[in-house]
Amino acid sequence: MDNMIDPWGSSIIDYDKLTGQFGIKDFKDVVDDIPDASKLMTRGIIFGHRDYEKITDALNNSKEFATMTGMMPSGRMHIGHKMVVDQLKWYQKKKSDIYLSIADMEAYAARGIDKQQSWNLAINEYIVNYIALGLDVTKDNFHLYLQSENDSVKDLAYTIGRKVTFSQMRSIYGFDNSTNIAHIYTPLLQVADILHPQLEENGGPKPVIVPVGPDQDPHIRLTRDLAAKFNEEYGFIEPSATFHRFMTGLTGEKMSSSKPKSAIYLTDSIKDAVKKVKSAKTGGRDSLKEQKELGGQPDKCSIYELLVYHLVDDDEKLSKLRDDCLTGKVVCGNCKQCASELLEVMFNDLNDKRAEAEEIAQTLLEK
Amino acid sequence: MDNMIDPWGSSIIDYDKLTGQFGIKDFKDVVDDIPDASKLMTRGIIFGHRDYEKITDALNNSKEFATMTGMMPSGRMHIGHKMVVDQLKWYQKKKSDIYLSIADMEAYAARGIDKQQSWNLAINEYIVNYIALGLDVTKDNFHLYLQSENDSVKDLAYTIGRKVTFSQMRSIYGFDNSTNIAHIYTPLLQVADILHPQLEENGGPKPVIVPVGPDQDPHIRLTRDLAAKFNEEYGFIEPSATFHRFMTGLTGEKMSSSKPKSAIYLTDSIKDAVKKVKSAKTGGRDSLKEQKELGGQPDKCSIYELLVYHLVDDDEKLSKLRDDCLTGKVVCGNCKQCASELLEVMFNDLNDKRAEAEEIAQTLLEK
Repeated sequence: MDNMIDPWGSSIIDYDKLTGQFGIKDFKDVVDDIPDASKLMTRGIIFGHRDYEKITDALNNSKEFATMTGMMPSGRMHIGHKMVVDQLKWYQKKKSDIYLSIADMEAYAARGIDKQQSWNLAINEYIVNYIALGLDVTKDNFHLYLQSENDSVKDLAYTIGRKVTFSQMRSIYGFDNSTNIAHIYTPLLQVADILHPQLEENGGPKPVIVPVGPDQDPHIRLTRDLAAKFNEEYGFIEPSATFHRFMTGLTGEKMSSSKPKSAIYLTDSIKDAVKKVKSAKTGGRDSLKEQKELGGQPDKCSIYELLVYHLVDDDEKLSKLRDDCLTGKVVCGNCKQCASELLEVMFNDLNDKRAEAEEIAQTLLEK
Repeated sequence: MDNMIDPWGSSIIDYDKLTGQFGIKDFKDVVDDIPDASKLMTRGIIFGHRDYEKITDALNNSKEFATMTGMMPSGRMHIGHKMVVDQLKWYQKKKSDIYLSIADMEAYAARGIDKQQSWNLAINEYIVNYIALGLDVTKDNFHLYLQSENDSVKDLAYTIGRKVTFSQMRSIYGFDNSTNIAHIYTPLLQVADILHPQLEENGGPKPVIVPVGPDQDPHIRLTRDLAAKFNEEYGFIEPSATFHRFMTGLTGEKMSSSKPKSAIYLTDSIKDAVKKVKSAKTGGRDSLKEQKELGGQPDKCSIYELLVYHLVDDDEKLSKLRDDCLTGKVVCGNCKQCASELLEVMFNDLNDKRAEAEEIAQTLLEK
């Protein structure tokens, strides 16, 4: 844990429970083996993993591996979603193949969103921002696809479906009698998304890392189970996963695309974004006097989270900010001002890059 | 019912019950509207239908329609399977498009038979015999495909899956908790098989006739239900169906590929086939004396069935045979001899045609 800072204090506890109960391992224990670990790793934002040793082995010994993630396009992309992009960028720099699935079939089954809508949203909202945020989608090692157009994924989904029962699926996903059959089938598509980089046509079996939120762990467990069951036929290696914290919304609840006040959208105007920051729920006390005496509570502060996740790159600066908050030296107004300024820098940069990103995005998937 | 003979006597009663209870209509009521109705139709072997009026309308007014059926390759083709071929041939002569699905995905989910095995069996066992029996597979209006390679079918299956719940599927197919998910999904592929001739790429909405056994009626009902639910998006017309009797096996039970003594396989040697005929269960009495007095029981006789379904084309000859049996004029030995001779003619013809049929079959699906 030499290169790890812990910006969380006690708020990490919930995630500790999660890891204890479901067999997710502590990411702290592998982080020292990672060459040039990212801030998301060293700051404990990525807090847990399954089987990450396969990935550190690949990273340290220049072995081939792949990174896989998916998106179900719905609503606008917010700053919490940036975490995934940051991870993809990091793995791309480490020469990993990147597989990115647009889960249009899932969007159809679960929400009735048609393929064309999914495509529009994925390309024009998400991918444009991914590119503007620095993901190099023009590299050969970057594979973007619509689930509905990936025959390997669709065929693999059906094949692996033979070794999972309704009972298993129901206990994982909570299906009931009124669940539609396309919906029941959908998790198999996600499992196939994760496994298909290991098909012969994609270079055969290899370690695969899936960076996700902890809510996705049931998928990961099902995928690992099915990888093992089809090891004989396909040589599948059980994929690895990391689990990252969710961002707290600016209102104190979960940050969500469907709650505009909770989230800073990447396409918000700078004015709107700053306004949201200024009215955000912080870890401040009831009065300035009290705060000066008791200090603030960074672990309950959505602005502090914003700084840790996205805005402050310098660990020392972050530590100092935390200390100054805890001792009451800086108050919420200061932090909001600081976050607003840093956000403005980021948004200006994004806006500059978005025009070119739009052009590139249009070339990615014919439609 | 002018052109209909009833070779069944009272044994038709079971099928009558079936039609009464589940809303299958009597085929007798439409048979007079069919131009050049086939023997399977006039003899009541095809005993029931749903919505056949759409097909008589197409037949009489030279409207476009399609015929759809599928095969799940398993075991060897027996003479009972010939009924489907006879129906396809008839519809082909009536200028119907013919769609024939090889249900390799179903074979995989339900029985663990892989795609290559399904292909081998479908082509080398079934299709070779279909061709030898006279189906013209070289016509433009003949469409043969493997389910696993038909993207339209696979994509349509998922799409329609959104409007059927697990509860519905379970009540139709009797799934339980231990049923695998691929299996649960499979009926959607069959529904899509039946509906896909109506997709724009296949010429758009049109009447479709599905000739099946009565055990397949749940599929038909589900398909008609989903056709109606997706009428708005696709313009689907609810497909029509006919239902034909099953052949009684030579042992008195159901004729089945997995019971060699019950079935005459199309690739049996003439010697073996005749041997099976000679030892078949008939409607004969305990003694020759008794039979001369009481007459035989053609409606309980597997040899008589063979003559009605496949071997005697002339209705008068058949009527006479029935009468002569009922009055004790002919006895089982006579009929067995007659059936053996007719079978030998059919098998010689099939054997002659099979060599060329094998060559044609190999050109149908690349593999």
